[in-house]
Amino acid sequence: MDWGTDLWDQYDVIDKHTQSGLELVEKYVKFVKERTEIEQNYAKQLRNLTKKYHPKRGSREELECRFSNHQAFLDILNEMNDYAGQRELIAENMMMNICIELTKYLQELKMERKTHLSEAKKAQQSLESTYKQLDSSKKRFEREWREAEKSAQYAEKTDQDINATKADVEKAKQQAHMRAHIADECKNDYAAQLQKYNKEQSQFYFSDMPLIFNKLQDMDERRVKKLAQGYVLFSDTEKQVTPIIGKCLEGITKAGANVNERNDSIALIEQHKSGFERPGDLDFEDYSQGINRASSDS
Amino acid sequence: MDWGTDLWDQYDVIDKHTQSGLELVEKYVKFVKERTEIEQNYAKQLRNLTKKYHPKRGSREELECRFSNHQAFLDILNEMNDYAGQRELIAENMMMNICIELTKYLQELKMERKTHLSEAKKAQQSLESTYKQLDSSKKRFEREWREAEKSAQYAEKTDQDINATKADVEKAKQQAHMRAHIADECKNDYAAQLQKYNKEQSQFYFSDMPLIFNKLQDMDERRVKKLAQGYVLFSDTEKQVTPIIGKCLEGITKAGANVNERNDSIALIEQHKSGFERPGDLDFEDYSQGINRASSDS
Repeated sequence: MDWGTDLWDQYDVIDKHTQSGLELVEKYVKFVKERTEIEQNYAKQLRNLTKKYHPKRGSREELECRFSNHQAFLDILNEMNDYAGQRELIAENMMMNICIELTKYLQELKMERKTHLSEAKKAQQSLESTYKQLDSSKKRFEREWREAEKSAQYAEKTDQDINATKADVEKAKQQAHMRAHIADECKNDYAAQLQKYNKEQSQFYFSDMPLIFNKLQDMDERRVKKLAQGYVLFSDTEKQVTPIIGKCLEGITKAGANVNERNDSIALIEQHKSGFERPGDLDFEDYSQGINRASSDS
Repeated sequence: MDWGTDLWDQYDVIDKHTQSGLELVEKYVKFVKERTEIEQNYAKQLRNLTKKYHPKRGSREELECRFSNHQAFLDILNEMNDYAGQRELIAENMMMNICIELTKYLQELKMERKTHLSEAKKAQQSLESTYKQLDSSKKRFEREWREAEKSAQYAEKTDQDINATKADVEKAKQQAHMRAHIADECKNDYAAQLQKYNKEQSQFYFSDMPLIFNKLQDMDERRVKKLAQGYVLFSDTEKQVTPIIGKCLEGITKAGANVNERNDSIALIEQHKSGFERPGDLDFEDYSQGINRASSDS
């Protein structure tokens, strides 16, 4: 089964089908392009989010990163930033490996399709032109044959007319002979044209058009194959970064696990303890013994 | 090492540190909330994208889904829609398990912190008030002792004054005796107040405040632990849907693999072949034999 054999009389169907196939590729490219825009936008929002929450240099927040629960938040922000980078990579690779690649391929296919269809048109026009020649040759033979028949009838009628002169009869016979000769030549010409046409028609239906339709089928199958590769790339591009995204998520889990509440309490002690002893009991200041009189004013 | 012992004189530090800890939780909740908004927005854009490219009911595109390369695109759109659903799930679970949960917990911690700090303030005020009593008692003792000394000196002076009457001497001695008695009472009162203050001060520095500071430390450690759990949930929420997202990607790969260019070519044949034979050779129409005359006009 192939288009050349089974769709020999479906030029319009093949024309439309191959056109619709190219449109699907175009649509898919547009779809992936819009996906990359969504992905870029998503990545940008994630980047802005991490930037917004990232402590400024020399800020109180930065100083607090000596505490593990503050440091972990910073680690998470950094992982989210890497995560955003991976989403950008998805967008870039989709654009490069699907959109640009398929757009280039699409241009080639459009050219190729145009070539095949114009070849088909040319073959059709050539066959039509041959048919017109055949038709006019056939009509001339028919016309000339009628003329010859009329001339023959006239010659016979003249021959049996008692009033006709010998010269009239001779002239009519000569005329009839000439007409018969012309009709015969037209018959030969028609026969030759018919042979030519039949040969060309057979070439057209059994060789030229099947070849062109099969080329279009082959082209369409190549398009489908390439498009299917583009479909697979749509998920492969994301699968490629999945392990790295997994590492970002692991990094976040690790940041959470690294938080140590006991160490954070001790860090506060180490940073702020004065080392002073707690106040002991106040002494009794016995004015009646005359000691510490001065200090009683304090 | 604990705050009660090592940071006994760092009330302000503990006040600020626990406040800053709660602020970090608040900041983290806000960060996650903004992440969920980004995620929701991302999911919505993906959903809109799939909807935009999904063929309308009864459209030419829908009919074309009999071709595997068109059907696969539809499959990809459906997988992308499921994918978007998983991103929505991430957003919903983050909101539920991190934002709402931590916000509730934060309210409890704020209440608890307020309670501890107001207990500390109350203990401080009580000790200050006892100190003021002690101070005033000590000053009264000092004042009264001076008065008693002056009275004693006056009594002695009067006793040695040759111009003084016996009555004067007696009166001065009585006065000195009375003053000495008052001073003695004040001394006892001061001693009692001092004992009370020292007991209270010891209770304050070695028992009450360490207890409160340790409660604040315990509270802060609970906060850090809960926050760390919230950090881990941030990646766990996404890890949970990773297998399903993986399945969506697998579905896309499968859709691409299901495309069969040969079958698509045959499907076009089955849909459109007319079943007609290709035209054979045209017959020679021999007018000179008087056959097919009518057909020559066609």
